[in-house]
Amino acid sequence: MHISELETPAVAIDVDILERNLATMAAYVQEHGFGLRPHTKTHKIEAIARMQLRHGSMGLTVAKSEEAVVMAHAGCTDILVAYPVYGPAKWERLAHLARDRRITVAVDSLLPAEGLAGEAVRAGSTIGLLVEFDVGMHRCGVPNAEAALALAQQITRLPGVEMRGLMYYPGHIWDRPEAQAPALAHVEAQLAAVLDALRRAGISAPIVSGGSTPTARNSHLVQGTTEIRPGTYVFNDRNTLGVGACAPEDIAVRVLATVVSASVPGRAIIDSGSKTLTTDRWISGNDQGFGSIDGYPDVAVVGLSEEHGHLDVSRSANTPRAGERVAVVPNHVCPCINLHDRVYFHSQGEVLGSWEVDARGRIR
Amino acid sequence: MHISELETPAVAIDVDILERNLATMAAYVQEHGFGLRPHTKTHKIEAIARMQLRHGSMGLTVAKSEEAVVMAHAGCTDILVAYPVYGPAKWERLAHLARDRRITVAVDSLLPAEGLAGEAVRAGSTIGLLVEFDVGMHRCGVPNAEAALALAQQITRLPGVEMRGLMYYPGHIWDRPEAQAPALAHVEAQLAAVLDALRRAGISAPIVSGGSTPTARNSHLVQGTTEIRPGTYVFNDRNTLGVGACAPEDIAVRVLATVVSASVPGRAIIDSGSKTLTTDRWISGNDQGFGSIDGYPDVAVVGLSEEHGHLDVSRSANTPRAGERVAVVPNHVCPCINLHDRVYFHSQGEVLGSWEVDARGRIR
Repeated sequence: MHISELETPAVAIDVDILERNLATMAAYVQEHGFGLRPHTKTHKIEAIARMQLRHGSMGLTVAKSEEAVVMAHAGCTDILVAYPVYGPAKWERLAHLARDRRITVAVDSLLPAEGLAGEAVRAGSTIGLLVEFDVGMHRCGVPNAEAALALAQQITRLPGVEMRGLMYYPGHIWDRPEAQAPALAHVEAQLAAVLDALRRAGISAPIVSGGSTPTARNSHLVQGTTEIRPGTYVFNDRNTLGVGACAPEDIAVRVLATVVSASVPGRAIIDSGSKTLTTDRWISGNDQGFGSIDGYPDVAVVGLSEEHGHLDVSRSANTPRAGERVAVVPNHVCPCINLHDRVYFHSQGEVLGSWEVDARGRIR
Repeated sequence: MHISELETPAVAIDVDILERNLATMAAYVQEHGFGLRPHTKTHKIEAIARMQLRHGSMGLTVAKSEEAVVMAHAGCTDILVAYPVYGPAKWERLAHLARDRRITVAVDSLLPAEGLAGEAVRAGSTIGLLVEFDVGMHRCGVPNAEAALALAQQITRLPGVEMRGLMYYPGHIWDRPEAQAPALAHVEAQLAAVLDALRRAGISAPIVSGGSTPTARNSHLVQGTTEIRPGTYVFNDRNTLGVGACAPEDIAVRVLATVVSASVPGRAIIDSGSKTLTTDRWISGNDQGFGSIDGYPDVAVVGLSEEHGHLDVSRSANTPRAGERVAVVPNHVCPCINLHDRVYFHSQGEVLGSWEVDARGRIR
């Protein structure tokens, strides 16, 4: 079956591009001698997780305790939960997994560390902890070396958990790759202060986990980083392209849609709205539009209702007709995939099969 | 179990408020003598669909052919697909349903009408059609009385389908209810011209379907309307409140979340981000924020990462602490519910059970 025969809307993944993206990132980390622990939030698919492990990933990253369960089921034995998980049921879930898998959790305060410690003791397991350090995104993370050291010292005194290092997330750096050096030098300086404070206190931090797709291939500029956690690089999207972290031919994902109406002058409507594409913005571009359409550079996706994508066709000489199928590159692929129960994968347009989005809905 | 014991994030529905919202809308349409055909896109839950039918709804509305299958399974025998469905598999699905149910589809061009007609003939069924007329939203719909008449005449010549009337959607009217009269008077004038053209051509239009939650209780201002299709009124949300179409005590939905980090000065992070709340904007308000938090009027949900809700606590004397549970009113409840596999329903905080979101993922 050709992808043009799939009922729309449907998410189609080009496996050749996917494999190449996986190989390219694996080659980059190998060249620089650090580890790759991809964030599976982007795809949430066991089969792709296994591809990542085959492509030299040392382990995987998740955001939720239930996602850790899915990725353990996929066969991963070394999982980082890059999130300050909060709540007894989640701590218990992870402590249980840690019995026969290496589980590491990033924390930025004592309370979840204590919760995880208590459940690990109860389960007879050991959970590794990373201290999350805020390098400028101002989301999670302790704000300075003193706070990082204080939390690390508290962790070393807890039973059931093991201080394994630091985590940082340079998610605020949206400069183009060639202009990232100054921002990453600042990150390096911040980290060096924390690592120095830990070293002087005799606390070892064998893991320093960084990453994010826009900065991924400049990770070597942050000396001390031991592993990175890019997510979006598997598929890429309009934001990755906009920031210059991939080329057009590196985008492995399309939302296949049908033009269902062209009755309003200057407009065309596709059967993919916010429940198919998400309303996430084009933050790496001019903030206009909710996707781009292959072959129609002058047609803008100007708005999304829940099931209607609104195309402005008034500035395009060539306009899609009612009934025509189009292929949309979403602004942000991670929440887009998360809307779908199943995605289709193909090679050169020939559908090879479909994957269930195994970890979607596992939000706890 | 109390809702405070549910693992977060979780969607909690107050059934007392839900029942009252259903009863209030039912009383309004009964008072004015027209029909209620709620749009089930908001909840996608069979149990709530059955509650709507018990509360005097004449039938239900859906956007997708697969949603029609779910609502037929829920026991509904009269379903409107308020969408110009495009594609042979969808036409066949609806033609099959129409064998033993009343199925009506809104179209704004001949091609889907012909497609539905062909499949209905093949299935030995009859599908009703409404001509969608654009009253100003500029999304779908024929633009004037001549085009409406032309399409209606073409439909009357097709086998397998039956011309049943008109559909309009006043989704562009976001004035407060007390200020909607001029906009609705304009809609009435537009509709009158179409209905007059049809009448003079001898084409009957027994159904004139309108509605939308913000305008719902002014539907009687559009003379000629025979039924309305509000969706959001079952739960309401921050947008419904902002436009004045409900009071705070009419909001039946909360996303229950936990503060997972308060390490960054001036910030707190909850375990509900764009994959739990959606990035839909507060279009009825000042466009700031992605939800409001009960009991913290000065805490703003200033940003959403996929699994992190970013709270600005810098302007609030009273701030949620790490580990604290909060209740969030989402900006737009429809795509929010669509992110969840299951929601919990309660009376005065006591959890009575949970509902699967039956029609989520049925995007075809």
